[in-house]
Amino acid sequence: MKWTEPRQIARLISAVEDGRPGHEEQLKELFYQTGQAHVIGVTGPPGAGKSSLTDKLAKYYVDQGKRVGIIAVDPTSPFSGGSILGDRIRMNDLTTNPNVFIRSMGTRGHLGGLASSTHLVKQILDGAGADIIFIETVGVGQSEVEIVQAADTVLMVMVPGLGDDIQSMKAGIMEIGDVFAINKADLPGADRAKIDIQNMLTFQPEKDWLPLVQMVSVKENTGIEELAKAIEMHRSFLNEEDRLAIRRKRNTRNELIDLLYDKLYRRLVTQGNFERYLEQIVEKTLDPYSAIDKLLEDLRSENEND
Amino acid sequence: MKWTEPRQIARLISAVEDGRPGHEEQLKELFYQTGQAHVIGVTGPPGAGKSSLTDKLAKYYVDQGKRVGIIAVDPTSPFSGGSILGDRIRMNDLTTNPNVFIRSMGTRGHLGGLASSTHLVKQILDGAGADIIFIETVGVGQSEVEIVQAADTVLMVMVPGLGDDIQSMKAGIMEIGDVFAINKADLPGADRAKIDIQNMLTFQPEKDWLPLVQMVSVKENTGIEELAKAIEMHRSFLNEEDRLAIRRKRNTRNELIDLLYDKLYRRLVTQGNFERYLEQIVEKTLDPYSAIDKLLEDLRSENEND
Repeated sequence: MKWTEPRQIARLISAVEDGRPGHEEQLKELFYQTGQAHVIGVTGPPGAGKSSLTDKLAKYYVDQGKRVGIIAVDPTSPFSGGSILGDRIRMNDLTTNPNVFIRSMGTRGHLGGLASSTHLVKQILDGAGADIIFIETVGVGQSEVEIVQAADTVLMVMVPGLGDDIQSMKAGIMEIGDVFAINKADLPGADRAKIDIQNMLTFQPEKDWLPLVQMVSVKENTGIEELAKAIEMHRSFLNEEDRLAIRRKRNTRNELIDLLYDKLYRRLVTQGNFERYLEQIVEKTLDPYSAIDKLLEDLRSENEND
Repeated sequence: MKWTEPRQIARLISAVEDGRPGHEEQLKELFYQTGQAHVIGVTGPPGAGKSSLTDKLAKYYVDQGKRVGIIAVDPTSPFSGGSILGDRIRMNDLTTNPNVFIRSMGTRGHLGGLASSTHLVKQILDGAGADIIFIETVGVGQSEVEIVQAADTVLMVMVPGLGDDIQSMKAGIMEIGDVFAINKADLPGADRAKIDIQNMLTFQPEKDWLPLVQMVSVKENTGIEELAKAIEMHRSFLNEEDRLAIRRKRNTRNELIDLLYDKLYRRLVTQGNFERYLEQIVEKTLDPYSAIDKLLEDLRSENEND
């Protein structure tokens, strides 16, 4: 799998998303080429301009000669696919740039699999040679936070005037930000927002990294390079001591659990006796605890027949 | 297990929450006595007064001679236990009423298990003879929405002045409400909030039940009986045709998946070779797809040794 073969990459991603079998060997091979990309998770409240800011950063990196992957994750959208099929059409020249690969990910009606699909797409792009991978979410729901945490650096995009909203954002969400961008720096209240966020960050439990806060304006095209430098500083920080290794081990752990659940879901829930046991539980001729024992027993005989 | 033995109920709940083995027989027996309780999920934005309103409704039902269970779920709290240990101490006479059983549920540090623990506690209270069970969440995050959906009737508690917040609440959250309570009906803007919510409800995808909207004031103690009647109307609606059976089958399906994941988490992730494989993946001497095959193989040999 090469970066210069976007169609092949797109085909593999679609196959993996659909859970089509027969691609494990390819994924296994790709895995041993992963780990080079710097993965940046982009999150923040709806309307903060995450998507446009990601595009600006991507442009900046492409101009530096980097290969950039963008995974736009929307748990509320049933659509997946290339950028044209995605719910947000990016109206710029990124989509045709050979050094940029953009992929929209929706739920595609498959329960709980979005996180594990995102991990797989990240691995495919990483293995195919991306230097930078953005994982961008539409909002700050719990599943989105989990997805975006699977990054080396989490960029939290804020806007002025959130005031009470910052208060009501769960502490757990602010805590995951490594770098903060305050977008629409031209709007009134931008300085105030910066102070609010910096104040909040100082109240966080002790960390060895104090998150950087950078003013940007997507509209005026200001602060983008400074933001990229802040992200680069975080990457340098991770490269000291064992920090990157520790972070990636935590992420790999969560990814492995997600992949495991996803595989079990496909093997136990979508086929076999699941619906029959469910029917029996509803009729009260079987209890749920015995049903689970039976499902695990089914898995065992299935393995034997492999 | 009897309703008149709250200490035994509490002990079984703690054992189940801690994942202590040896209680399956008791849970299996209890399961065949479940299905009588009307389960009411209570959700809404933080500060809407969900907890106080639940208490008022509980008081109303107790006065009607009903047995009431309250499960207060807080995914952000590490605490579980009786109401005294819970994060919100209920300053009223409910806690000492023999017909009320209150239980606070936090994450207790155990990943992903909160939903399945909540199902189990619901089943225990149902099997022990509760007539009404409230499942109350602190916020409207995705995991809370999933938990509260495991109810027969979802009560959405709103307050005046949310305005934009209603807009920003994901459509998927408003959609799960069967009955809406607008609390603090004495505040300015209450009528406006009612109209906003009713307008939003008419834009929802076609449903055969149009959610009821009731003004209440916990402070002034008004509208509580009317709200209970609205909830009762929804229950009557469910009792027509196969609606209750269909809803409970959907819920049982989700509960079974949660229980399955929880059991697999305990068996595969917290013990055995999981950490060893993780180490190998990080060192790139093993790929994640082969690790999952190995984990399932371990599960199989474990079953053989049962």
